[in-house]
Amino acid sequence: MKIFTPLRARSVAALGERRLIAEIRGWLGDASPRAPFGIGDDCAVVPSSGRPMLITTDPVIHGRHFDDTVPPRAVGAKLLKRNLSDIAAMGGRPVAAVLSLALAADTSTAWLRDFYLGLAAAARKFRVKVVGGDITQAPAGFFGAFLALHGEAVGPRVVTRGGARPGDRIYVTGALGGSLLGRHSKFTPRLAEGAWLAKRSEVRAMMDVSDGLAKDLDSLTPAGLAPAICARAIPIRPAAKKCAGQTRQTPLFHALGDGEDYELLIVVRHRADEEKFRRAWAKRFPRVRLTKIGFFARTEAMPAGAVRLLDYRGYEHLR
Amino acid sequence: MKIFTPLRARSVAALGERRLIAEIRGWLGDASPRAPFGIGDDCAVVPSSGRPMLITTDPVIHGRHFDDTVPPRAVGAKLLKRNLSDIAAMGGRPVAAVLSLALAADTSTAWLRDFYLGLAAAARKFRVKVVGGDITQAPAGFFGAFLALHGEAVGPRVVTRGGARPGDRIYVTGALGGSLLGRHSKFTPRLAEGAWLAKRSEVRAMMDVSDGLAKDLDSLTPAGLAPAICARAIPIRPAAKKCAGQTRQTPLFHALGDGEDYELLIVVRHRADEEKFRRAWAKRFPRVRLTKIGFFARTEAMPAGAVRLLDYRGYEHLR
Repeated sequence: MKIFTPLRARSVAALGERRLIAEIRGWLGDASPRAPFGIGDDCAVVPSSGRPMLITTDPVIHGRHFDDTVPPRAVGAKLLKRNLSDIAAMGGRPVAAVLSLALAADTSTAWLRDFYLGLAAAARKFRVKVVGGDITQAPAGFFGAFLALHGEAVGPRVVTRGGARPGDRIYVTGALGGSLLGRHSKFTPRLAEGAWLAKRSEVRAMMDVSDGLAKDLDSLTPAGLAPAICARAIPIRPAAKKCAGQTRQTPLFHALGDGEDYELLIVVRHRADEEKFRRAWAKRFPRVRLTKIGFFARTEAMPAGAVRLLDYRGYEHLR
Repeated sequence: MKIFTPLRARSVAALGERRLIAEIRGWLGDASPRAPFGIGDDCAVVPSSGRPMLITTDPVIHGRHFDDTVPPRAVGAKLLKRNLSDIAAMGGRPVAAVLSLALAADTSTAWLRDFYLGLAAAARKFRVKVVGGDITQAPAGFFGAFLALHGEAVGPRVVTRGGARPGDRIYVTGALGGSLLGRHSKFTPRLAEGAWLAKRSEVRAMMDVSDGLAKDLDSLTPAGLAPAICARAIPIRPAAKKCAGQTRQTPLFHALGDGEDYELLIVVRHRADEEKFRRAWAKRFPRVRLTKIGFFARTEAMPAGAVRLLDYRGYEHLR
């Protein structure tokens, strides 16, 4: 049976990412438990004889997640930090990583050295051990580094994406957009913030923003609800404005659609004392912005003037 | 900085697999603990709040681990089983897997469906949950599936590769060689055998045979010792003889060098009651061959007639 097909209709590209993932869930059937114990959250939660384990996996691939303009140390660091951001989004603590490398025989040793030095520096900084891996030769022109990261819950709970209710507020850390101009490889994963948020009773659900707010919000939205987002409330990074100057799109377009923000998107219970929550945040993280950008409304009661998120859909894989 | 180099001397191919791994350990420094807590055994052993965790990672890549002649269900099953064999080699029990996929947009949906059905069937058979993953678009012509598998110790210990002493016996399960003719995708990982062996006090060390006995034995051999292997004792698979007919090599050449045997290589303490050990094995695994193939000698006292393993070096990555 041939693995590649010349007929687009029979290829995964015809399905697109979202439908492909739905198909995969069907194919795996009961070999894949429901989220958060399986596919569908930032990390999988695996019951263990000790604290619940968190597992996540994300790669960096040459030509897709980085190119020759990104210093190899930043690529190595980014690989780990992408995965750390998923642990942060569950309120967990990272423990150990394994790295599977597929690389062409003509990969530069000097480049690879810097890649590993960047990975090692990030691992030390965030107290992760790189405990193993595999190296396999890939066809010419290919370099992919596939990292699996293991963590564990810090406190009594992990925060999943599920459970938002009507009236729950939506918050975001930092600011959004224009990541391509630098943040995508320079960000600091919000581990401390995530762990703190997981201990706050105000927080109902959480995820990290990786594919763009407009797309990622879907994953927090239960059936029957919709996110009512106030455009003017969105914290926009200066880089998003710079991008907008080049693309002739609006800064909001970049803030909602660019992706690779690696900020935390937080659902706060509608009955929570928001004043208290915000004061506690400002005391613990005086330098990190926290912004309320909207709330979850019932679909039949969407306020006029809410952002039409469909117009700002972020990065789509497999197009 | 350019990731690929036209100068072979500056490429990873010039280093070769063994030196590259040594370099990587140096680059990672204290971000990577010593085996078995880091790189260098079948799995990494990660201390946790419960039982020690085992983590391993191995991929399947089109054109390297399989081609279009291998049914996609067998490819999916092989991916999991390769990793299960590593868990088996530590005497552990598998728990959960995450899968990172890098695939060209023209990957056939029907092929991918069968790949996942094969993976799911193997996962059910060996009681592993596929708990998450990632899908990333790769350049045309590429398909790689990178699995990370998590397990835990079954009994009070995990069996590492280390610790062999002079006089310790070397055993192997099943038979070796000619895996390419079918076994490489049809094998059953020796999980039950590995878990049983880990409970036996006779067993000092263990690993699985993936790169060929002649190469893999190195990993069990401490400084100052050498494996004294008796050629006539090696259990040779009929497929190795078939291969020998085609390649004009000896069946022994294929048995020692082919790789992908996924059998267990076991170090038995020199003072153990071997008769008792073998009887217990035969009672528990009446259908699985267990063969003593040699022992560890001091390098200065190698018996005449031992196999010169260097002549049979198995699969070398990155040539």
